[in-house]
Amino acid sequence: MEITNSVIKWVYSLSQKKNRMKERCFVAEGTKCVLDTAGFFRIRYLFASAVWIERHGRNLAVVPIMASETQLERMSMLKTAPEVIAVYEMPEWDICKGQLATELSLVLDGVQDPGNLGTIVRIADWFGIRTVLCSEDTVDVYNPKTVQATMGAIARVRVSYCNLASLFEDCQGIPVYGTFLDGSSIYDAELGGTGFIVMGNEGKGISPDLEKYMTKRLLIPSYPQGVPTSESLNVGMAAAIIAGEFRRRML
Amino acid sequence: MEITNSVIKWVYSLSQKKNRMKERCFVAEGTKCVLDTAGFFRIRYLFASAVWIERHGRNLAVVPIMASETQLERMSMLKTAPEVIAVYEMPEWDICKGQLATELSLVLDGVQDPGNLGTIVRIADWFGIRTVLCSEDTVDVYNPKTVQATMGAIARVRVSYCNLASLFEDCQGIPVYGTFLDGSSIYDAELGGTGFIVMGNEGKGISPDLEKYMTKRLLIPSYPQGVPTSESLNVGMAAAIIAGEFRRRML
Repeated sequence: MEITNSVIKWVYSLSQKKNRMKERCFVAEGTKCVLDTAGFFRIRYLFASAVWIERHGRNLAVVPIMASETQLERMSMLKTAPEVIAVYEMPEWDICKGQLATELSLVLDGVQDPGNLGTIVRIADWFGIRTVLCSEDTVDVYNPKTVQATMGAIARVRVSYCNLASLFEDCQGIPVYGTFLDGSSIYDAELGGTGFIVMGNEGKGISPDLEKYMTKRLLIPSYPQGVPTSESLNVGMAAAIIAGEFRRRML
Repeated sequence: MEITNSVIKWVYSLSQKKNRMKERCFVAEGTKCVLDTAGFFRIRYLFASAVWIERHGRNLAVVPIMASETQLERMSMLKTAPEVIAVYEMPEWDICKGQLATELSLVLDGVQDPGNLGTIVRIADWFGIRTVLCSEDTVDVYNPKTVQATMGAIARVRVSYCNLASLFEDCQGIPVYGTFLDGSSIYDAELGGTGFIVMGNEGKGISPDLEKYMTKRLLIPSYPQGVPTSESLNVGMAAAIIAGEFRRRML
């Protein structure tokens, strides 16, 4: 295949969410990110330098397209052009209520920072949480920064976007654990092995109109209690501690 | 005070570590960051817009210096100039062995990412860990990005740099908990209420020449065990889970 100008522009255009949504494609850049994810998504194109193909080409299921440094530079969203760029098709996950009822899942309500979303996906992967359900205003997981920040975990965790109110309406009977600054201590609470763990927006927390769906309000107690401290934990940290506590009880 | 060109250049020069080290000063930018930290460090200068002074000037212990938008822009390290910039003197913490022996402290061995250091300081603050000791090659906590990422926690946590081998030599008898991929589960381990929790570099973990000082090797078990997952957790996430587990036992 010849790498035309319009192909280059098309790849670069995937740095923008609106283009990703239209094309249902996203990009992974750099050796680690590509090797961690290749084989997990359907590959549209794999562009790489001659040196890279020489070194890694044999282990791949697709034939890489040789690209010059200038071409990779023009396609890349990174400051320094990578040696390899993969264009993947977005997966369409089939997430059904029956499955959600038997597992622990993470639900994100308006998480804004691409890095936070990336580390949360990594946390999910570490703790065997297979599904992360995001509100429609949560940052796009196929944002190149987020893809990078997941360190390959995006290949093993199903991240899906939906209307959270409809989700909770459809999934009545499944426990919904919300994190609030006035919740009860996660260490004293009864935690099950199934349900939704809901993490809110970085500044505003969980939306007021979703609060009614929460069957348990949780809090990570600070220490020592009653002493002035940070107003809140970073949402990624909080997700790590809470997911860890659910899993500790299940070990 | 008149804001001369050389003052502006001097403030801006503090974006570089070598200048911060020479001047023993650092910068906090933006309303939230300044209000969270003012009163905790000795203020060299506080530059602010007329509007900002009108709104917040009365609650401060120092007289702000009025600056124009252009002046603030030239002093700032941010893309969008803030309404207020504080220049603080770096604190000199007096950290003695006697105190370390009675508390839980965090020790960072070569953490490189300013954001990771910032969130770790936030974690320390949340869990009442008053001291974070960093190897000399750990990223500078007075880096403007880190100051920002601590969300004010830098005002309550003492962050200090030292040679870690000398620290452990001097502090023999104090437990040293290291985090390793081949450690034993943090949930089964005996954890005390005092000692050092050591977190390693993002890619390389804890330096081999420090391993001999570790009195306990800990691991955060993934779930379910034995299933392929991410190679490791982000160092900030790991610090959050481990500090949380120590404190859970103490509640």
